[in-house]
Amino acid sequence: MNGPNVLFAARPDRWDETRGPLEAALAEAGVAADLATDHAPDTVDYIVYAPNGPLQDFSPFTRCKAVLNLWAGVEDVVDNPTLTMPLARMVDPGLTEGMVEYVTAHVLRHHLNIDADITRKPGDWTPVTPPLARDRKVTVLGLGALGSACARALAGLNFDVAGWSRSPKTLPGITCFHGDEGLADALARAEICVALLPLTPATEDLLDADRLARLPEGAVVINPGRGALIVEDALLAALDEGRVSHATMDVFRTEPLPQKHPFWHHPSVTVTPHIASVSRPESCAKVIAENIRRGEAGEPFLHLVDRQAGY
Amino acid sequence: MNGPNVLFAARPDRWDETRGPLEAALAEAGVAADLATDHAPDTVDYIVYAPNGPLQDFSPFTRCKAVLNLWAGVEDVVDNPTLTMPLARMVDPGLTEGMVEYVTAHVLRHHLNIDADITRKPGDWTPVTPPLARDRKVTVLGLGALGSACARALAGLNFDVAGWSRSPKTLPGITCFHGDEGLADALARAEICVALLPLTPATEDLLDADRLARLPEGAVVINPGRGALIVEDALLAALDEGRVSHATMDVFRTEPLPQKHPFWHHPSVTVTPHIASVSRPESCAKVIAENIRRGEAGEPFLHLVDRQAGY
Repeated sequence: MNGPNVLFAARPDRWDETRGPLEAALAEAGVAADLATDHAPDTVDYIVYAPNGPLQDFSPFTRCKAVLNLWAGVEDVVDNPTLTMPLARMVDPGLTEGMVEYVTAHVLRHHLNIDADITRKPGDWTPVTPPLARDRKVTVLGLGALGSACARALAGLNFDVAGWSRSPKTLPGITCFHGDEGLADALARAEICVALLPLTPATEDLLDADRLARLPEGAVVINPGRGALIVEDALLAALDEGRVSHATMDVFRTEPLPQKHPFWHHPSVTVTPHIASVSRPESCAKVIAENIRRGEAGEPFLHLVDRQAGY
Repeated sequence: MNGPNVLFAARPDRWDETRGPLEAALAEAGVAADLATDHAPDTVDYIVYAPNGPLQDFSPFTRCKAVLNLWAGVEDVVDNPTLTMPLARMVDPGLTEGMVEYVTAHVLRHHLNIDADITRKPGDWTPVTPPLARDRKVTVLGLGALGSACARALAGLNFDVAGWSRSPKTLPGITCFHGDEGLADALARAEICVALLPLTPATEDLLDADRLARLPEGAVVINPGRGALIVEDALLAALDEGRVSHATMDVFRTEPLPQKHPFWHHPSVTVTPHIASVSRPESCAKVIAENIRRGEAGEPFLHLVDRQAGY
């Protein structure tokens, strides 16, 4: 057969779980690909890629038509100077759905203060009427595929939702802010603040002491985006003072989060082990196969990364 | 003025919080009512009522046009033989919204096993990928105003939702079961089972040992409906054996739930103090005022109770 050679360049555990679904998805897409982990570099047509694997030098892949990232995040590969071919990131409906479920679950958890119910002492019958969601202001920082899906879902549950993005956007039912000035307003009304920005030089350390101080007293921060969006010491100081009442975080500058890290030990921090949005082999495989089909048919690739913007 | 006399017959704390909003809502509805807690019975046109107050004998209220219940539940008043005038129950948009928020929050909590995150030990970085909501089967028992709103919200979050009602119903996007035979099927697929039925002779003790045994192994039960829908000993036995993995309950046969009750002490039970759906004075007042306006205009009352059906 004369189909494309597809190199799978990610860790072995990923290969084990992805190989079957990817072969099935390629067959379903009508692509007679040769999928392997050991093609000679100069014979490779497509690279299915994860940034935490051994492949870091793309220069030997002289005929490669595209690098197809298995992750939504590309910050660890986008600046690689040897990567001169098109780079596509993963935009997996399963990733978005998982993120929407995580975000709505934790927003509702904090909205209703469910932690108090889970840790309630026997006999503690003290009903507290929470506000309705329509009276709860939530701000989503980042209105890309994930952020806008979360903002829509929260608005569908009646929350009073605002969103913030660097450039102007419009979403029905969402109060949209943009730019530096808009960020101050978006933070000032965020009883619950969800960080869903990509990590770029422009967003790193975005939530520093000054910006955290703009949140209303007692705000909750939820970060399922990227660990480096938040200045850790500034967040811990705000938590210690109660200005931020709780932080629920799924992503960290170092993962796994080291056991000695203060986040593990702070009573007002919930750590989840990077589970908000996990690639599921079946849904990822379909996206990868569709991009290979497009490449072979001469159609434009989906989800190409803007190398200048960094995402 | 010659407007109707409206007797407020509920506990004093309810009067304190409801008086202002109700006067405002009546004025807004254009009804010049005389609202008081001490009208002579034979001068009363409408009774704003809560079943836990002192008024239990309606016979002196000879010209009363309607009893307007402040609660959604009417089981403590519907069989009162002295109540011969129309009885309306509370169908408050705030009640429905609060219930939807409670149910979606706790379904998502169990779906993602958030309790494990809240009680996670420092350094326990063990990512577990939950299924997507589309692969999680939830059954809502009861498809009245509250049940159908919850079923819709859960379906909107992508859950695979079924509903059950005594008589046949159709809801878009919801698999609808009905009757005794349908109940067995609705339970058999309920990874998460939400009880939102009214309490009637036909629903009391509905979830007994036999019916709980039909749930899939490890199912979660959420009961924000009525305490007496569930046979407590049968539920505790199923929890002890792990056949039901968790029960989150907001309503009980005796409230407040006595401190010695096993539900407080069982590790797989979450008790919430009847907070799922709480009447909020402002939204209730609008419903009451609209029914009084209708009575005065000779229009049919909203939300009349079917005294035979019991709700």
